[in-house]
Amino acid sequence: MLDNIRIVLVETSHSGNIGSAARAMKTMGLSHLYLVAPRQAIDEQAIALSAGAEDVVKQAVIVDSFDKAVADCSLVVGTSARLRHLQNTLIEPRKCAMKAVEAVKSGQVAIVFGRERIGLTNEELLKCRYHLTIPANPEYSSLNLAMAVQLVCYELRMAFLSVKEMSLSLSTIGKIYPNFSDIEHFFQHTERLYTELGFIQNQSVMQKLRRLYQRAELEKNELNILRGMLSAVEKRIKSSS
Amino acid sequence: MLDNIRIVLVETSHSGNIGSAARAMKTMGLSHLYLVAPRQAIDEQAIALSAGAEDVVKQAVIVDSFDKAVADCSLVVGTSARLRHLQNTLIEPRKCAMKAVEAVKSGQVAIVFGRERIGLTNEELLKCRYHLTIPANPEYSSLNLAMAVQLVCYELRMAFLSVKEMSLSLSTIGKIYPNFSDIEHFFQHTERLYTELGFIQNQSVMQKLRRLYQRAELEKNELNILRGMLSAVEKRIKSSS
Repeated sequence: MLDNIRIVLVETSHSGNIGSAARAMKTMGLSHLYLVAPRQAIDEQAIALSAGAEDVVKQAVIVDSFDKAVADCSLVVGTSARLRHLQNTLIEPRKCAMKAVEAVKSGQVAIVFGRERIGLTNEELLKCRYHLTIPANPEYSSLNLAMAVQLVCYELRMAFLSVKEMSLSLSTIGKIYPNFSDIEHFFQHTERLYTELGFIQNQSVMQKLRRLYQRAELEKNELNILRGMLSAVEKRIKSSS
Repeated sequence: MLDNIRIVLVETSHSGNIGSAARAMKTMGLSHLYLVAPRQAIDEQAIALSAGAEDVVKQAVIVDSFDKAVADCSLVVGTSARLRHLQNTLIEPRKCAMKAVEAVKSGQVAIVFGRERIGLTNEELLKCRYHLTIPANPEYSSLNLAMAVQLVCYELRMAFLSVKEMSLSLSTIGKIYPNFSDIEHFFQHTERLYTELGFIQNQSVMQKLRRLYQRAELEKNELNILRGMLSAVEKRIKSSS
């Protein structure tokens, strides 16, 4: 179950943080680490700080873009310290863990951590269904990257153990969720069409639509309907032009 | 409330761990650090790793025995990785935090962390009312000392916040929601347009769309965007027919 959850670190500056994050993951039973364009290669420092989690570091998947790290995921959660403007999709580690443990029944889950100093970009955050915030001391909320990974992985393990403990005969509910790229294609399709129609003239419309549909947790058949609607409009426009 | 909880580190070998532990504490709103016979003095390494929590390190109380660090406490919890024999008094961080938040009403609380390699001695453990164990991966449970401090302080903060929240009257957040007929007009508008476009041919599509948008709890500005999109399509169709 924890095996379907990956930790993604975006443009990490210090290789030591990669090692410490790997150690933190392994203590909580997670092993899939993805690195998006790390600024330092995996070096001696990373290996040293990983302690007994050298395997996690060495098996890390290195990719060159955010999208590639999460393409096959049906739930993507982004972490950042500066999330005040994202009221609707904000969740804390405990709730995040419950969502993740629920979501792994039907697909892969990614928890994405941003750069040490500046976190995730707004563009990256908009690609995430939820935004994870750690309820830290408002007067000093500067958690080290690996510490944040430790807390989140701890909550994932706690949620996993509690599900296991309830020895739930997992009655899956039978909803099927689209993966990240399917949803991304829908957003791009929408943007293309409505820009062409002159309705979209700046970024704010797409930001609001992304927020709306991510909050709604679109199911696969719903996404199919929405894409069908886009195609119906396109078809009419083409036939009459 | 968190102000009555202290973190005690016993015979810490590496000053860096003291600094990292101080940082972890401060991010969660704790500030009282006690050091029992630290093996390294507070040096540059400790200060550097404390980051913005230099104040916590500098105000640390250094004593020469376990007993002195906890003498005035009414609840003492001891932490160690090797606690299998202490079945009756074992608690996990979440439960420990609840006990601590309860206990601060009537006195001081100490959470004691042992030496990096060997933890607390049996003699020290016997002086603790509860024994805290982190439910780590049984195949690799080697948490760094500061990571363990981070997890425990996080649970203390969560318990503190939940007590605080319960005593606050819930204030409403100020989102503006459309009324029933606004949403109904949107659904009828959608049905009319997409029936005309030949996409909607029976009731099931509208049923699914209604379910989706009701679940999403559309806000007023989002509804305006969706209606704007319908109008943009209509405008194009009319101009080209």
